[in-house]
Amino acid sequence: MRTGGSPLGLHRVLEPPGVLPQAAWRLDADSELYDNEVRVRVERLNLDAASFRQLREEYRDDGDAIRECVRDLIERRGKMHNPTTGSGGMLVGTIDEVGAASPLGLAVGDRVASLVSLTLTPLRITDRLERWDGHSEQVPCEGSAVLFARSIAAILPEDLPMPLAMAVFDVCGAPALTARVVGRYAEAAPEPSVAVLGGAGKSGSLSLAAARRAGAGRVVAVVPDDDEARSLRAASLADEVVVADARDPLAVAAAIDEPVDVTVVCVDVAGCEGGAILATRAGGTVIFFSMATSFAAAALGAEGLGAEVTMLIGTGYTPGHAAGALELLREVPGVRRLFEARLDAEERTLRGR
Amino acid sequence: MRTGGSPLGLHRVLEPPGVLPQAAWRLDADSELYDNEVRVRVERLNLDAASFRQLREEYRDDGDAIRECVRDLIERRGKMHNPTTGSGGMLVGTIDEVGAASPLGLAVGDRVASLVSLTLTPLRITDRLERWDGHSEQVPCEGSAVLFARSIAAILPEDLPMPLAMAVFDVCGAPALTARVVGRYAEAAPEPSVAVLGGAGKSGSLSLAAARRAGAGRVVAVVPDDDEARSLRAASLADEVVVADARDPLAVAAAIDEPVDVTVVCVDVAGCEGGAILATRAGGTVIFFSMATSFAAAALGAEGLGAEVTMLIGTGYTPGHAAGALELLREVPGVRRLFEARLDAEERTLRGR
Repeated sequence: MRTGGSPLGLHRVLEPPGVLPQAAWRLDADSELYDNEVRVRVERLNLDAASFRQLREEYRDDGDAIRECVRDLIERRGKMHNPTTGSGGMLVGTIDEVGAASPLGLAVGDRVASLVSLTLTPLRITDRLERWDGHSEQVPCEGSAVLFARSIAAILPEDLPMPLAMAVFDVCGAPALTARVVGRYAEAAPEPSVAVLGGAGKSGSLSLAAARRAGAGRVVAVVPDDDEARSLRAASLADEVVVADARDPLAVAAAIDEPVDVTVVCVDVAGCEGGAILATRAGGTVIFFSMATSFAAAALGAEGLGAEVTMLIGTGYTPGHAAGALELLREVPGVRRLFEARLDAEERTLRGR
Repeated sequence: MRTGGSPLGLHRVLEPPGVLPQAAWRLDADSELYDNEVRVRVERLNLDAASFRQLREEYRDDGDAIRECVRDLIERRGKMHNPTTGSGGMLVGTIDEVGAASPLGLAVGDRVASLVSLTLTPLRITDRLERWDGHSEQVPCEGSAVLFARSIAAILPEDLPMPLAMAVFDVCGAPALTARVVGRYAEAAPEPSVAVLGGAGKSGSLSLAAARRAGAGRVVAVVPDDDEARSLRAASLADEVVVADARDPLAVAAAIDEPVDVTVVCVDVAGCEGGAILATRAGGTVIFFSMATSFAAAALGAEGLGAEVTMLIGTGYTPGHAAGALELLREVPGVRRLFEARLDAEERTLRGR
């Protein structure tokens, strides 16, 4: 087996040379491994929602054209990396071979989901994607992918349906970081208060449950409408469920009333920075998980409000994050009910279109 | 004196109602105070660089037209808030009257700079800006401004030239937050290592000095070229000064060599997220001060690199930040030399145009 592979996968970069795999135009997807790599026999790709939407628009929902485009992209780039959106997705498969020096702790036969983006994962497709009609983000396929020493993969649990596990993996960074931050406040003073903007969503409900487990006292959830408020109240994840537009700082502050120690932003719309800052007490922390967060709006917002708050960029990665999130789903019935209801709704929308 | 003023200045918002002062189109700039406010007799405005550049372009460097536009804007909006750039600037003046309930700790006669943006500061101009030729960001003027209970102002030091003090105030959030984070690492294990990207700049040099004072061991500065490396080496603020393009993650990682506990990003160009993340050890912290930081690039970058790092949005505000930064400037000769050299260069550029 070849040796000397870089933990970041630099040895797989073909062009341009000297960049990270995500920045590369083309990767070497050769299925022969370096000794710190792992090979996955791929069963399905899960295209990033933004990427799939762009493909549907470009090809006007012509499934055959979409399929050809994806096939061609993967062949030319050695990875599934939509050049227009810059996004990829994730994959599911079974471990095929494990290099002796791989630190990932995976074994041949493990069924895994890759938690690093397809935009940096060497991928070779060996069928013609003929089992995919081009009308869903879920792409059944045959082929091989390579995980580097610094890649992240999670073993798929046997007790949960795959779509449910994937939905959890998709947001598992949020409860992990929430637990870490709330736990730190709880050490300093018992029962810190926590607010979650977008508490009824996937990352939101997991964050509420994680906050509670980490020792939170008062837990408030902010949701946009009465429907979400009803289902979140039924899930019993928060002491208070309040309805407010997260983009309206004064409405959020009024709804939260007493500012909290930790505010977690899980709302995927722009303009929630001010409300999150106002909801947080001096010396508190805001964790932003929404990709719609604006760095400048957060930085200047805190300054403009004279707010002494710590602001964290929520990352997808904390060691043990996937297992921890699955545990919350299994053990907190309210979280599981919200996830299942959301997956059902998505399924219905998908069928309806 | 009127009572019931909101700490955030909501009572000064005229239109649209129910928004924060920064989001408002028009503020009430009446010089009669509420009891939690402070009035400043304004001597000069310091227009935001982006705003002034836009005005110069729009009016093709016609100073009279620029002056009329600024006058008109302030009169119509009750604040200096450029509607095109969304930015304002800061002001310098003398405290005129202090409401009995103001918590800012200011006294009549104090000469201050406002550290909150002009975009949220009620402002009334009583001269016709006739002492301003429209060709500089510095606008001498007469008028009054209002500071709210949550506004931030710093007393101008008597021992330093005003442009030098203003340059320090402009970036004083960076050394304050750097000191706090480095201090926390130093408590856990002595002499944490620190890297500053853009170490020769204003926020960079202050951050280097702050890191050292907070107990840093190895301190590395990354600069873009040999000129900056030479002047930074002469200032003796870092153990190592290395030249690398901060936008090239692998070049930064190679230049830093051993990953550090805390990385501070002070480079005002886009695309420095990957390098900062790679420069930082697992369990370390990245503080982003550059307004060119992309939230998504940081969040996805950390995930793609399997990096377990805490990422902070650098804010302009930490209590005591202005005084702390002035202290560093006074006591660390290298910092002062770099600031003075930079101001000289800016002055020459200004004269040359």
